[in-house]
Amino acid sequence: MRKIEHLGIAVKNLETSNELFEKLLGSAPYKEEEVVSEGVKTSFFKNGPNKIELLESITTDGPIAKFLEKKGEGVHHVAFEVEDIVKEIARLKSEGFAILNETPKKGADNKWVAFVHPKTSNGVLVELCQEITSQDL
Amino acid sequence: MRKIEHLGIAVKNLETSNELFEKLLGSAPYKEEEVVSEGVKTSFFKNGPNKIELLESITTDGPIAKFLEKKGEGVHHVAFEVEDIVKEIARLKSEGFAILNETPKKGADNKWVAFVHPKTSNGVLVELCQEITSQDL
Repeated sequence: MRKIEHLGIAVKNLETSNELFEKLLGSAPYKEEEVVSEGVKTSFFKNGPNKIELLESITTDGPIAKFLEKKGEGVHHVAFEVEDIVKEIARLKSEGFAILNETPKKGADNKWVAFVHPKTSNGVLVELCQEITSQDL
Repeated sequence: MRKIEHLGIAVKNLETSNELFEKLLGSAPYKEEEVVSEGVKTSFFKNGPNKIELLESITTDGPIAKFLEKKGEGVHHVAFEVEDIVKEIARLKSEGFAILNETPKKGADNKWVAFVHPKTSNGVLVELCQEITSQDL
């Protein structure tokens, strides 16, 4: 785990929240991106070595829609940058963590991603992420 | 806002969670600290440029005790490092954010801290923090 790559925050309305977080962080989002497989549209803010990702649901039954219904707006996940996501998945599995994706999948912002179930990590949904390089494609 | 200084996670039992996060992050906490004014004992993990703070309540009616009762274990707050906390409080106030501490107070890990109420920041409890220097004392 090299650093907090980003913090994912579930929001009801991306446009409204983009304005709010621009005020909070002092800079505008550097990109917006839809991840259809996850049922979300996202925006990303740079904050020094870290990023903030806002997530709005574009479906009524996706993970963010369910999260908002159950818990309301707020921190949804924390993503850690890892050097070798396949090795890290194996390491965490052997340590007893419940891994939601045994094989990394493509996430937003050009990343391989895998999630650790919050039930084994103190209620925190943990994402592992690794930059996709041209060798992977 | 320079970076995510740390992510604060509410836990029921610091000792058990220290072991869990040592497995997750791959390194042991570098310190433990009680903040009596906040009714918590804390531990800190380094993670590249960021930190993870675990918080266990040492009172039955403090903010972490109430959070655990209401929401269970999980992400409690995100702390951003700022260059000038007094200026940042004034700036955020003028932008319409509800500031919980008009004057910075001493927090854990040798920091001046102030909080932004989650009702004005999309359900996210935001902490501003600035290192206490010898000039401040």
